[in-house]
Amino acid sequence: MADTALVVSAHSADFVWRAGGAIALHAAHGWQVTVLCLSYGERGESAKLWRQPGMTLERVKAEREREARAAAAVLGVHDIQFWDLGDYPIALSRDSLFRLVDVFRAVQPRFVLTHSKEDPYNHDHPAVTDFTQNARITAQAHGHNPGQTVLGAPPVYLFEPHQPEQCNWRPDMLLDITPVWERKRAAIECMAGQEHLWEYYTRVALQRGAQAARNSEKPVKWGEGFQSVFPHVVETLG
Amino acid sequence: MADTALVVSAHSADFVWRAGGAIALHAAHGWQVTVLCLSYGERGESAKLWRQPGMTLERVKAEREREARAAAAVLGVHDIQFWDLGDYPIALSRDSLFRLVDVFRAVQPRFVLTHSKEDPYNHDHPAVTDFTQNARITAQAHGHNPGQTVLGAPPVYLFEPHQPEQCNWRPDMLLDITPVWERKRAAIECMAGQEHLWEYYTRVALQRGAQAARNSEKPVKWGEGFQSVFPHVVETLG
Amino acid sequence: MADTALVVSAHSADFVWRAGGAIALHAAHGWQVTVLCLSYGERGESAKLWRQPGMTLERVKAEREREARAAAAVLGVHDIQFWDLGDYPIALSRDSLFRLVDVFRAVQPRFVLTHSKEDPYNHDHPAVTDFTQNARITAQAHGHNPGQTVLGAPPVYLFEPHQPEQCNWRPDMLLDITPVWERKRAAIECMAGQEHLWEYYTRVALQRGAQAARNSEKPVKWGEGFQSVFPHVVETLG
Amino acid sequence: MADTALVVSAHSADFVWRAGGAIALHAAHGWQVTVLCLSYGERGESAKLWRQPGMTLERVKAEREREARAAAAVLGVHDIQFWDLGDYPIALSRDSLFRLVDVFRAVQPRFVLTHSKEDPYNHDHPAVTDFTQNARITAQAHGHNPGQTVLGAPPVYLFEPHQPEQCNWRPDMLLDITPVWERKRAAIECMAGQEHLWEYYTRVALQRGAQAARNSEKPVKWGEGFQSVFPHVVETLG
Amino acid sequence: MADTALVVSAHSADFVWRAGGAIALHAAHGWQVTVLCLSYGERGESAKLWRQPGMTLERVKAEREREARAAAAVLGVHDIQFWDLGDYPIALSRDSLFRLVDVFRAVQPRFVLTHSKEDPYNHDHPAVTDFTQNARITAQAHGHNPGQTVLGAPPVYLFEPHQPEQCNWRPDMLLDITPVWERKRAAIECMAGQEHLWEYYTRVALQRGAQAARNSEKPVKWGEGFQSVFPHVVETLG
Amino acid sequence: MADTALVVSAHSADFVWRAGGAIALHAAHGWQVTVLCLSYGERGESAKLWRQPGMTLERVKAEREREARAAAAVLGVHDIQFWDLGDYPIALSRDSLFRLVDVFRAVQPRFVLTHSKEDPYNHDHPAVTDFTQNARITAQAHGHNPGQTVLGAPPVYLFEPHQPEQCNWRPDMLLDITPVWERKRAAIECMAGQEHLWEYYTRVALQRGAQAARNSEKPVKWGEGFQSVFPHVVETLG
Repeated sequence: MADTALVVSAHSADFVWRAGGAIALHAAHGWQVTVLCLSYGERGESAKLWRQPGMTLERVKAEREREARAAAAVLGVHDIQFWDLGDYPIALSRDSLFRLVDVFRAVQPRFVLTHSKEDPYNHDHPAVTDFTQNARITAQAHGHNPGQTVLGAPPVYLFEPHQPEQCNWRPDMLLDITPVWERKRAAIECMAGQEHLWEYYTRVALQRGAQAARNSEKPVKWGEGFQSVFPHVVETLG
Repeated sequence: MADTALVVSAHSADFVWRAGGAIALHAAHGWQVTVLCLSYGERGESAKLWRQPGMTLERVKAEREREARAAAAVLGVHDIQFWDLGDYPIALSRDSLFRLVDVFRAVQPRFVLTHSKEDPYNHDHPAVTDFTQNARITAQAHGHNPGQTVLGAPPVYLFEPHQPEQCNWRPDMLLDITPVWERKRAAIECMAGQEHLWEYYTRVALQRGAQAARNSEKPVKWGEGFQSVFPHVVETLG
Repeated sequence: MADTALVVSAHSADFVWRAGGAIALHAAHGWQVTVLCLSYGERGESAKLWRQPGMTLERVKAEREREARAAAAVLGVHDIQFWDLGDYPIALSRDSLFRLVDVFRAVQPRFVLTHSKEDPYNHDHPAVTDFTQNARITAQAHGHNPGQTVLGAPPVYLFEPHQPEQCNWRPDMLLDITPVWERKRAAIECMAGQEHLWEYYTRVALQRGAQAARNSEKPVKWGEGFQSVFPHVVETLG
Repeated sequence: MADTALVVSAHSADFVWRAGGAIALHAAHGWQVTVLCLSYGERGESAKLWRQPGMTLERVKAEREREARAAAAVLGVHDIQFWDLGDYPIALSRDSLFRLVDVFRAVQPRFVLTHSKEDPYNHDHPAVTDFTQNARITAQAHGHNPGQTVLGAPPVYLFEPHQPEQCNWRPDMLLDITPVWERKRAAIECMAGQEHLWEYYTRVALQRGAQAARNSEKPVKWGEGFQSVFPHVVETLG
Repeated sequence: MADTALVVSAHSADFVWRAGGAIALHAAHGWQVTVLCLSYGERGESAKLWRQPGMTLERVKAEREREARAAAAVLGVHDIQFWDLGDYPIALSRDSLFRLVDVFRAVQPRFVLTHSKEDPYNHDHPAVTDFTQNARITAQAHGHNPGQTVLGAPPVYLFEPHQPEQCNWRPDMLLDITPVWERKRAAIECMAGQEHLWEYYTRVALQRGAQAARNSEKPVKWGEGFQSVFPHVVETLG
Repeated sequence: MADTALVVSAHSADFVWRAGGAIALHAAHGWQVTVLCLSYGERGESAKLWRQPGMTLERVKAEREREARAAAAVLGVHDIQFWDLGDYPIALSRDSLFRLVDVFRAVQPRFVLTHSKEDPYNHDHPAVTDFTQNARITAQAHGHNPGQTVLGAPPVYLFEPHQPEQCNWRPDMLLDITPVWERKRAAIECMAGQEHLWEYYTRVALQRGAQAARNSEKPVKWGEGFQSVFPHVVETLG
């Protein structure tokens, strides 16, 4: 059976900028990666679309979904879901929580990716992180839908926010995404509505790559940073 | 050529309580582990010996060295050195710094273990950590003894202090030392002068083991915790 | 067109103690300052009124509004609004959020003042700060009421809580309010229901003034402290 | 009139592991200790029960209540209440808040015990802490049920979470529970459903005891750690 | 035998502003309080004296000593020592360290007062705190001057710096100094060379007093704040 | 008389990467900027030079000085000084401290730029920051060389380290260096020995520029980030 991972993305483009390399890398190694887009970012992250005359909420959502599906295909995502919960602010109900619990149990991810714990520029991102943590814990509860296989203890890694220092986000893992950089860049270019971010996140990847090289003496060129929520359980320090 | 690791211990027993499992585990896998005891802890960590009538500083040091050598043998240490720099407070000179730089370059460790960054109960521990970081950086400098092979970028892991929360120490790595627990316990029992700590650090190992199990779903019984100084550079998140 | 500022105050007296100087100063320079009192503090910050025999909630609210209006007049507030959302605890609904978004867009403030991020003595204060940040971000979303002018990126400054160290609040801006101190004191004296705080906040102003003088060599006598949420974008460091 | 204390426990066993010593100690000195179990931990902390064939939610709750009542009796709890608010996640409504306010005012506790402010392993614990703080503050409001005696300013102490460093919990009080350790152990043994925790929390008590001895030179053997929310008001530093 | 306390003051006036109330209070209860003035603050904290024509370093020191002795007499200090180590920057040698160790052992203080751990406005203050901690630990070492009575584990409390938030200093103890306020004020008035600080620290005492009242419901008027370095070991939480 | 600024650079290239924009910008506005290169970075930051056959320490220093002088000329530096204190590790004596005090008093800078407070990759940087703060405070002391004009209270801004999150460095000021970017780039290109950093710091400038635009709605393209040590004293919040 394939290894699995779960990515919980507040808006439909977040998984591309922030975890596209990790997704492509694991997909390339045969992992099945599930991506949940809890909203389309249709209100708060679609300025370019809204500047078009006659734009409607439904058309924005449709366009955002189209872009995200295209990017997911490039990255090799196994399953992408659009929950359409609304954005700015996102609405995270108890029903959605249990739906996420179901996904946790069905996917049984070996690791989870989501947003930073703080973000003064974005109210949805930390809300989704808290929601994801809540669902992960509920999925571990034996008394929730007894009889189902409960969730183990998959690590949770927080991907990079737009202005990392302002979010008190500090990467403790630098992932070498050099082997899949071209795919990440291709996925980024699917995001026609946010073209102003293409070069920004290309530079982020180069900076994290240079830092990875500095921290390891390995010839890393492109990188992604992640912050761990839980301690790593290891069998060697080497 | 064997993999290598370097342990920098302020006093001659610290490496046993705090890193004995890591040392034994890597030694068992063929690593060559070098342990530097910068002092004997002869003034500040030998209360039981000092209670013996007629005790002298030289006898304390000799006894402490004897105990530490016995523990090192049990753990499979490749090389143990006693630098006799004095304790409470330790004296860390520029000459000692360059001596440590020489060791870094000669050993070329794949990882380094030393103390926590803060410790309100122990002035020598953080001083040694700062000193070790300083030496590591100097060992990376191409202009220091040009022609020598410079040091790469080995990760530094900080081992557990006596009262972890008071030192703002938080483990982000939990090492499963179950396979070598018996050796660590045997090494601990070499420390006749600090018998009051035997059970304390046995319980620490059980707690860290239980936490490792909780964080991984693996059947870990005995553990050691470490705090990373630098981000981990990785090729997979799985 | 006049410059504008927005003050979001959990209870109807907060803006006086914590930002009265900033309000008076900018008003004196021709700014239009809008103050939102989300509640009257009628339950939790009106002990003296409640000690009067036969007091009712409506009378407390009326008295608190009267005091706040008087203080606002002294300070030169352009617009003061009473939203009557209840206090201890305050009730911050989705409808109120969108109402605050409307104010953000109508006022287009050049800066925003609100409470500290933490306060173990007051549950409403941090709730209002989070709510204000949420509204500010929503007001920036092009898809919220498309066609309206969206909000820019006004800085948010957090004013001083009652016990600053316990709230992890640290001022990074010290505002010289010497030119308007008399007005702030007059506004403070409108708060008949909380006379025990008059001298307390007078001393706060003197301490912040002395600190401002110490940090600048300028002859500041009276000051107010603020903590910035976002980095300052500047064209000079001088 | 007896001194009183209030313990707010998210799940029905928390008060035993985390505060059993404090409860027994004060009960032994004649204090009346009220324990609120906001839920039974029936879904998330009853894995062993759920492994029994034919188990139902009601039977789990009944068993958990039975265990908690037995432990409370051993510890000398004055009043134990089961609020049955559900767990994983707990549901904390406005009605429950006011119910807790009523308890605060009826009990007038001289101190309050509850959970840590953060816990990445448990979503209910920090939620209950925030809820308790909110209720405490509301209980101080003169306008809430005017005429009732309002609450003073009882200190709040946060008891030890399962993995303290990961929760950024740091004890600033170490309570000597040696005189009542046998009772705490007996109460722990009432928790038949979580036998895997018996030795874990016995070791916690030994470690905190050893640390208390180290910090005081007193012959403490068993301890409990607490983190203060508010500064201590004292009449001497001795 | 009398209870004892030790105050380590970087400059000869610090003990007055920052701990005068604690000193007077304990002296009034029969404690023997030893105050060490490691320097006179002759270079950095004597601006007013240096403005007098023909002033010399020796005259500044003499005047500062005279003032400090007068204040100490008012406060009831048992022993005040002037170590004349120089200021701005202070010079803290190994010899001075051992001299301080000797004092620790001779005095056997039940608590220790010294400066905050950080202070961006004052380089000597944190240096003295680090030095004091180092000496305290050395005084606990059985191998230092074997045969002497070693030091126990007296708590260390950090007194209030000039701009507390900028020093990351947070009081966790608020001492009621109302009974001795008049003495503290009288001692303050001995400091003729720093008259600009009299009212500043009078206001500090009022603010800390008001906060103590708020945290305790006790009628505290004047207070001093302290930050604990170590956890408190207690026999009751009441 | 011209406005003045002081930049304290641990190694001879730091001022270019980290503050070249600020220097060029203020120079362009007529400021006189003094740059102190406390060492050449000859041992630790000259790897490329050391790879040349027959390289000597003196030749490295000469080459580094030549590069730094060229960059300083491009930026419009008023005075650049090379103190040759050695690097990796830098040696910061009492004599050097007083020499820096003399510079502070002679220059009377309106602001000071230096390194971050922490840097696990570089031992010299935080040492220089601490040294600079110490000198700044000593320069304020009236008793140091009485009769000289003492230093006021110039703000200190910490420039960006190589891996900002790992240094706990967070920018609270984003300076728009767009008008002088070409000069900064030209100065960067003077650093022939560290060509691998040219693009890295070009990307840093673009990221900080994009963040400045995001935080201000201004069309900033190139930026530099700084962290303030002291609170800003201001006369308006607008």
